[in-house]
Amino acid sequence: MRSPMHQNQLTLILGVFQAGFLVIFALYGSYDASALPSKEKNVEEAVRMTNLYPLFQDTHVMIFIGFGFLMTFLKRYGFSAVSINMLLAVFTIQWGIIVRGMASAHHGFKFTISLEQLLTADFAAAVILISMGAMLGKLSPSQYVIMAFFETPVALIVEHICVHNLQINDVGGSIIVHAFGAYFGLACAKAFGKKEQRGHQNEGSTYHTDIFAMIGAIFLWIYWPSFNAAVAATDDARQRAVANTFLSLCACTMTTFLVSQAVDKHKRFDMVHIANSTLAGGVAIGTTANVVLEPYHAMIVGVIAGAVSVIGYKYITPFLSEKLGIHDTCGVNNLHGMPGLIAGFASIAFLFIYDESRYPAQYDKIYPGMARGEDGKRMFDEKTQALNQLMAIGLVFLASTVSGYITGLLLKLKIWDQVQDEEYYADGDYFETPGDYDFTSRIVTSVSKIEVAEYNPLSQKEV
Amino acid sequence: MRSPMHQNQLTLILGVFQAGFLVIFALYGSYDASALPSKEKNVEEAVRMTNLYPLFQDTHVMIFIGFGFLMTFLKRYGFSAVSINMLLAVFTIQWGIIVRGMASAHHGFKFTISLEQLLTADFAAAVILISMGAMLGKLSPSQYVIMAFFETPVALIVEHICVHNLQINDVGGSIIVHAFGAYFGLACAKAFGKKEQRGHQNEGSTYHTDIFAMIGAIFLWIYWPSFNAAVAATDDARQRAVANTFLSLCACTMTTFLVSQAVDKHKRFDMVHIANSTLAGGVAIGTTANVVLEPYHAMIVGVIAGAVSVIGYKYITPFLSEKLGIHDTCGVNNLHGMPGLIAGFASIAFLFIYDESRYPAQYDKIYPGMARGEDGKRMFDEKTQALNQLMAIGLVFLASTVSGYITGLLLKLKIWDQVQDEEYYADGDYFETPGDYDFTSRIVTSVSKIEVAEYNPLSQKEV
Amino acid sequence: MRSPMHQNQLTLILGVFQAGFLVIFALYGSYDASALPSKEKNVEEAVRMTNLYPLFQDTHVMIFIGFGFLMTFLKRYGFSAVSINMLLAVFTIQWGIIVRGMASAHHGFKFTISLEQLLTADFAAAVILISMGAMLGKLSPSQYVIMAFFETPVALIVEHICVHNLQINDVGGSIIVHAFGAYFGLACAKAFGKKEQRGHQNEGSTYHTDIFAMIGAIFLWIYWPSFNAAVAATDDARQRAVANTFLSLCACTMTTFLVSQAVDKHKRFDMVHIANSTLAGGVAIGTTANVVLEPYHAMIVGVIAGAVSVIGYKYITPFLSEKLGIHDTCGVNNLHGMPGLIAGFASIAFLFIYDESRYPAQYDKIYPGMARGEDGKRMFDEKTQALNQLMAIGLVFLASTVSGYITGLLLKLKIWDQVQDEEYYADGDYFETPGDYDFTSRIVTSVSKIEVAEYNPLSQKEV
Repeated sequence: MRSPMHQNQLTLILGVFQAGFLVIFALYGSYDASALPSKEKNVEEAVRMTNLYPLFQDTHVMIFIGFGFLMTFLKRYGFSAVSINMLLAVFTIQWGIIVRGMASAHHGFKFTISLEQLLTADFAAAVILISMGAMLGKLSPSQYVIMAFFETPVALIVEHICVHNLQINDVGGSIIVHAFGAYFGLACAKAFGKKEQRGHQNEGSTYHTDIFAMIGAIFLWIYWPSFNAAVAATDDARQRAVANTFLSLCACTMTTFLVSQAVDKHKRFDMVHIANSTLAGGVAIGTTANVVLEPYHAMIVGVIAGAVSVIGYKYITPFLSEKLGIHDTCGVNNLHGMPGLIAGFASIAFLFIYDESRYPAQYDKIYPGMARGEDGKRMFDEKTQALNQLMAIGLVFLASTVSGYITGLLLKLKIWDQVQDEEYYADGDYFETPGDYDFTSRIVTSVSKIEVAEYNPLSQKEV
Repeated sequence: MRSPMHQNQLTLILGVFQAGFLVIFALYGSYDASALPSKEKNVEEAVRMTNLYPLFQDTHVMIFIGFGFLMTFLKRYGFSAVSINMLLAVFTIQWGIIVRGMASAHHGFKFTISLEQLLTADFAAAVILISMGAMLGKLSPSQYVIMAFFETPVALIVEHICVHNLQINDVGGSIIVHAFGAYFGLACAKAFGKKEQRGHQNEGSTYHTDIFAMIGAIFLWIYWPSFNAAVAATDDARQRAVANTFLSLCACTMTTFLVSQAVDKHKRFDMVHIANSTLAGGVAIGTTANVVLEPYHAMIVGVIAGAVSVIGYKYITPFLSEKLGIHDTCGVNNLHGMPGLIAGFASIAFLFIYDESRYPAQYDKIYPGMARGEDGKRMFDEKTQALNQLMAIGLVFLASTVSGYITGLLLKLKIWDQVQDEEYYADGDYFETPGDYDFTSRIVTSVSKIEVAEYNPLSQKEV
Repeated sequence: MRSPMHQNQLTLILGVFQAGFLVIFALYGSYDASALPSKEKNVEEAVRMTNLYPLFQDTHVMIFIGFGFLMTFLKRYGFSAVSINMLLAVFTIQWGIIVRGMASAHHGFKFTISLEQLLTADFAAAVILISMGAMLGKLSPSQYVIMAFFETPVALIVEHICVHNLQINDVGGSIIVHAFGAYFGLACAKAFGKKEQRGHQNEGSTYHTDIFAMIGAIFLWIYWPSFNAAVAATDDARQRAVANTFLSLCACTMTTFLVSQAVDKHKRFDMVHIANSTLAGGVAIGTTANVVLEPYHAMIVGVIAGAVSVIGYKYITPFLSEKLGIHDTCGVNNLHGMPGLIAGFASIAFLFIYDESRYPAQYDKIYPGMARGEDGKRMFDEKTQALNQLMAIGLVFLASTVSGYITGLLLKLKIWDQVQDEEYYADGDYFETPGDYDFTSRIVTSVSKIEVAEYNPLSQKEV
């Protein structure tokens, strides 16, 4: 039994935060001119709904359906997966708009909101939902929210430094979103870990929860090109980002099936790989989706990502869990972490593969630090840019692991509502569950020994 | 056993209606010039596919996936939920195009069809599907269709009066779509109600049907901004409608989690709230999504809607059922009814909060009745407009309850195929069901008492 | 037990193909100018992301979610359905880009890639996934890939002849995509058939797998207008294609419910019809979606398609299976085959119903062979065009059945990994399955005889 203090904790937390968000929005937030009535219309603003909105909506599906359903694979944690995903997303969207707005504010703390801010708020939500994947089933709702509260500002300030100070290109956010979210989650899992979380009887899926998870996986797969293209600067860059992501995902998916079967003792596919590693190609091409000019380069990135991701699930995740005590429920290291690092290092390689001469235009939009001034000089040369991309990877890795580890320690404090050992990876303590919840999750998985004479169920239809 | 007359009733009804639709479309329907080949292209028409089509498709997903899957939560009624939803939608789309077309016709009964008409036909379908939610599980397919046949013209004529005579602003249709559909459904449920419909053993969900319902809920949540923005007049109004709906939904979702836990004895979330009340913010901001200029105003509306909706599910729905004999299967009063009324009253409040001076442009597009003529005079002032908004709420409430009640009485007539008492909320009489239909719905929910020694199912994978 | 050679076969096949694709893309593939950075922007190119991308993404959802989930209806084959669908799609997308690119190449084998190529690659995937539907549950993963390898070039060369030599109009691909895929699949099933595939105990659905299938069905239904409109030439043609498809689907869905109930002994709906025949209207209007100018003509096509499709499922599929030895798992003849032929013959009828005078513009874009030169003369008259449409139907039918039959014979060779008789329509040999896989698929469907005293499960919630 949870104590009354713990039972009412989330009510208090959500109340305080939502009230705070309201006050801050009231004091400092306003709509951007493009979303307000005005006499003269700016052409660029006037097409925002046609240019950006479809890409925004695709991203929106990824956040709420994609991440939400991908995490429903656990046999007793479907309610939590899809609901807490929603709760953390709406929390982070509001909190992210505030943090990012204030970080970019020019006039005091005032910030403005347009379609771009809604889109980048969805990106911020992605960071937190990735970390949620590593912690899935181990935190109470209160703890998830507290994690999001601390992670969001760190992630967004690191992003701000990478984009505005280091001037890196990371168009699909593979470094600042995916790698950050993954390594924050892993460090948090390390600090928070205890042995009861490993080899737990509630882990594992049922036949239909694996199919539920594929709803999320496939929507992520389909809309990933939109995610990587959404903030690209021009129409051709967006089209290129779409095509690169599309081809990387195709090659990655082929490789996932290949390696998944090759590494299995019985040469069977593992649904964990199909649902997750097929997406690694979207992460790995993310940073350079607007850079790559040759289709086969995107495909090579996809092949590498798929292979690394499956090998990660097969060998690295168990190693991290058993040897290092880092229990990663969804294997975010394999879907977001390592592919995010691949994306980062690919961004350095492609900087030298495609030099300025390959870009008759837009080189300066992709790499603002290498824009030529009126005197033809550049702030950075390729080496400095490469160093900055590298520094961004290092900064993200360092900041995410340190802040994740501290957050994990913080979440261990007894003041927070904690999940009971036997209730890890289970909905029962936090959701009202129907009468068959125990059945499908506890009993069904134990009855394979029951012998029942088979008959053709089709014949029954005509009774 | 149903009598042969009742068994063949739907065949006859669908045959007559589809034949009638065909004849009416052949005699009076034609495509709009924008959808026909022509030499000179009007610029505004030429971009209809880029401007409107993505918003239309999002709405289309809401109608068929959103409403359809949201209603799959009942443990034995999944086939009906998703299939009858589809049947009523395609019925109402055709019937709605005819009714709305003829109501707006300038030349005899001739009406034209373009993308706008397909979109507003989807809106008409929403009205009927909301009423279906109140009646879910209680009607035979024939009765559902008859209900749609009577409800559609009443709803569309009331809409016509509200929009063209009272000149109200209701951009997201919260008054004329959501409130109408909800109160028609409640009145119909009252007239049609009998005690066997309450506390029925087929009511309630299973673990996986609650997850199926979340597919519908989340797609509704994601695409609601498109629903509220689709018919807004300009790009900035559409962007504003999107942002207001988005922020209202975020605040509403936070509040839903908060209140759902707070009102529960065991401090657990209820999936009915997560799947439904999180959407109330989309309804409550609907009428004024193009009006609101301050982000925090949208959030306040969302907070109120979420709280009212959860409280409605917890206290008002049982009260209506037990004390007033109004059994509302999906709780449409809490998702569409009360939030629709909130939207209506908010539209009056915001009329005075944002006066004409806040709109350097477009005030006349939002409120055509307050457009200034060449002499600078307006047909309405703010008070008249407010009175009209209020009259629209009253008209919608009155027309929906009266017509709903009469329809409910009509549906009780023995000439219609009626659902047997024991078959309420069950697919079996109307759909061929697989051999496990009885199992998952009847037996599984009864076996929580079975004791089975648990073991780790993961180990089995490697057998 | 499969032999080691067969167990490792897919690894080898996927490795060779993916390596081959990479080499071919590296040597011959490059991005189209519209997707590359350039100084001067072509206006038409600049709007590709706004004009085409939303339609492309809708099509993308159809391929991966639509086809994938539609095939999850089998009770033990859900993992395969959704995963092999994905594998065949990414294989065919890459292979299709290569084949179509080289077939259209002007300079040696060089081909270029833009958003159009990604879209038409999705169309190529549709062909193969339709054939997969006929073979569902009967092939090993290796065999599916081999089938796709042989089918893709035949389908695309036939398409090339139809479009470029015969100059037919088939805007939604009902002849060259749907009919080809269906009749290839049927011929393949005939050649590959053996009696153990028929009346197999693994065929049939469970209650929840039928609902999973509806996810696919409804997304196909919703986005079909985008599929039929995507390659139409102008905005009004796209809008017309959308509206025709929309209306045809509505009329088809009404008809499906009507006929499904009418032909059933107990007057119950069959979910197979609801999930499949409701879509036949999208296929049947596909060829002429850009041609039809009267809404009711589209509706008539939908009514015919729905009726033919349900009758096909009820009477023709069993006849083909029992009398002709053609076992069609998903009934693709009823969803894609016959409706595709209806589309083809409708294209001949509408050629005479709508003559040139009805098109003040664009007649030449719909029928390039009837474009008038500077001298006012046309290459074809209506009769020649009609003959060409007819020849295309004949060519597609002939080429698909011959190549499908040969492929079926080829797949029977013992060199390929073959599915064991008892494992038809089952995941177990190719996927790691959770502990309840046997339960839900084998035991649950056999326990309807168990008697358990019912109680109200709702009361349990409050325990």
